[in-house]
Amino acid sequence: MAQIIESIPNISEGRRMDVIEACVEEIRSTPGCTLLSFVPDESHNRTVITYIGDAKGVEEASVKLVKKAAELIDLTKHKGEHPRMGAVDVMPFLPIKEATTEDCIKLSEVVGERIAKEAGVPVFLYEQSARRPERQNLVKIRKGQFEGMAEKVQEEDWEPDFGGRKIHPTAGVMAVGARPPLIAYNLNLDTANVEIAKKIAESIRERNGGLDCVKAMGFMIDDEKTGQHYAQVSINMTNFEVTPLYRVTELVKAEARRWGVRVVQTEVIGLCPMKALIDSAEYYLQIKDFDYHTQVLENHIL
Amino acid sequence: MAQIIESIPNISEGRRMDVIEACVEEIRSTPGCTLLSFVPDESHNRTVITYIGDAKGVEEASVKLVKKAAELIDLTKHKGEHPRMGAVDVMPFLPIKEATTEDCIKLSEVVGERIAKEAGVPVFLYEQSARRPERQNLVKIRKGQFEGMAEKVQEEDWEPDFGGRKIHPTAGVMAVGARPPLIAYNLNLDTANVEIAKKIAESIRERNGGLDCVKAMGFMIDDEKTGQHYAQVSINMTNFEVTPLYRVTELVKAEARRWGVRVVQTEVIGLCPMKALIDSAEYYLQIKDFDYHTQVLENHIL
Repeated sequence: MAQIIESIPNISEGRRMDVIEACVEEIRSTPGCTLLSFVPDESHNRTVITYIGDAKGVEEASVKLVKKAAELIDLTKHKGEHPRMGAVDVMPFLPIKEATTEDCIKLSEVVGERIAKEAGVPVFLYEQSARRPERQNLVKIRKGQFEGMAEKVQEEDWEPDFGGRKIHPTAGVMAVGARPPLIAYNLNLDTANVEIAKKIAESIRERNGGLDCVKAMGFMIDDEKTGQHYAQVSINMTNFEVTPLYRVTELVKAEARRWGVRVVQTEVIGLCPMKALIDSAEYYLQIKDFDYHTQVLENHIL
Repeated sequence: MAQIIESIPNISEGRRMDVIEACVEEIRSTPGCTLLSFVPDESHNRTVITYIGDAKGVEEASVKLVKKAAELIDLTKHKGEHPRMGAVDVMPFLPIKEATTEDCIKLSEVVGERIAKEAGVPVFLYEQSARRPERQNLVKIRKGQFEGMAEKVQEEDWEPDFGGRKIHPTAGVMAVGARPPLIAYNLNLDTANVEIAKKIAESIRERNGGLDCVKAMGFMIDDEKTGQHYAQVSINMTNFEVTPLYRVTELVKAEARRWGVRVVQTEVIGLCPMKALIDSAEYYLQIKDFDYHTQVLENHIL
């Protein structure tokens, strides 16, 4: 498998296992594509599915998934805590290996057009595939949710990129687009004062003039299992090639010192590309002229 | 490719490219096996070949390589700086993925027996495959080299493990065995005093009571390209699972402080397994409960 593109769609079903299985089976049965995981969430009534493959394999699996989900999931009967606008709500494509952002944008256009045609679900191109700035942001596209979408697509600015101004009666609309791999990264502090975590988050995040591609919030964590209570800086890194893990870590530590507070532990949630971790090993070990592509043994196998 | 075993044999030919090519072609043409590199060294008159595959693929490629090398390389006419005892001098097997040390020991026994039978080259099992403690060390096995080997194998303690006490007339004998992946790691100091590098090497290496699986020496580096002169602690890490990269690095830094000296840069020479680097990222980033096998994205693909 030379080229690797990852997709992590969310489907609007987290309770009926037969429906989830039927959707996931569409991925499993597609050549050139490998299912990595699916994680149903009952309270959100939503399942995150992760798969990888080359552009052709991911294209086929993605279109098949939407057709099956549109057949089995009825948004007019769907309830859950998480906002949603379609049977498949959002479908991002991430370049992992021998694939560029441009490859993923192209893939999103091909898949978006096929979904509109073959599944009858109108598609908004979002994130790096967006053709208008306001469509980069999923939250803006999804505003109004499934219930308001039939009206919203009539507005001048909200005609879908594919499929026209008529939503699918039960499967709604969806967003498809390229985005960089995202890393969910938490830093736990040796304080129970959540205000300090919030202040640190504000000083380091892009929104407030901090590091590019870093979203950060401060939370209070009450761990019932261990009985521990501590403040946490919770981070979404939207592009680890622009802002690497070590830079975020060292900046959070520096800001924490301002409050006499230290980082006790960190957490990487879910999957993480090996390059994100190896970049940090290079930094801390001070490795000179390290060639990631030729010197990491596994890169000769992948 | 689920299981991955690596082999890094040395053949006693570093000058005649047609011979080297013919040997390497035996690897290339074997299904279940992938050639990663071959690096001829003219002054040593020796070539390092690196390939990977599952046990079956590596077995086939390894036996074919020895047959071809025994056919084309004549040790009675071989001259080079590096000590050697056979057309293929040494053939280690390293567990990389879904393979244990035991798998590699078993593979070395199967390959050793086949080489003796099919190529007529007697085999010593060495390193982790050794059946006597003195055969763990390649240097002890090779002592006397090709020229002294016909006599040496007659000694009570030096009957080869496979093939009996009669060496191959032109291809000699060889060593086959399992060993852990080795990392060549240098730490460059901000001093031109080589004695400090030597003192640091002595304090951290296993031989002097330092860290397990660490071999270290102090060198003076005169870089003609940059005109820089500096002392270097040069390390061979024979098992990064026992002693990880970060521990060596931090201990060298601590010892260097004793002399008012700092580590300016480090170098990883050649290939390095990704786990060795990710272990260090985990340490420095203080990641809690990181599951290397499930959380590193690439581990789902390999």
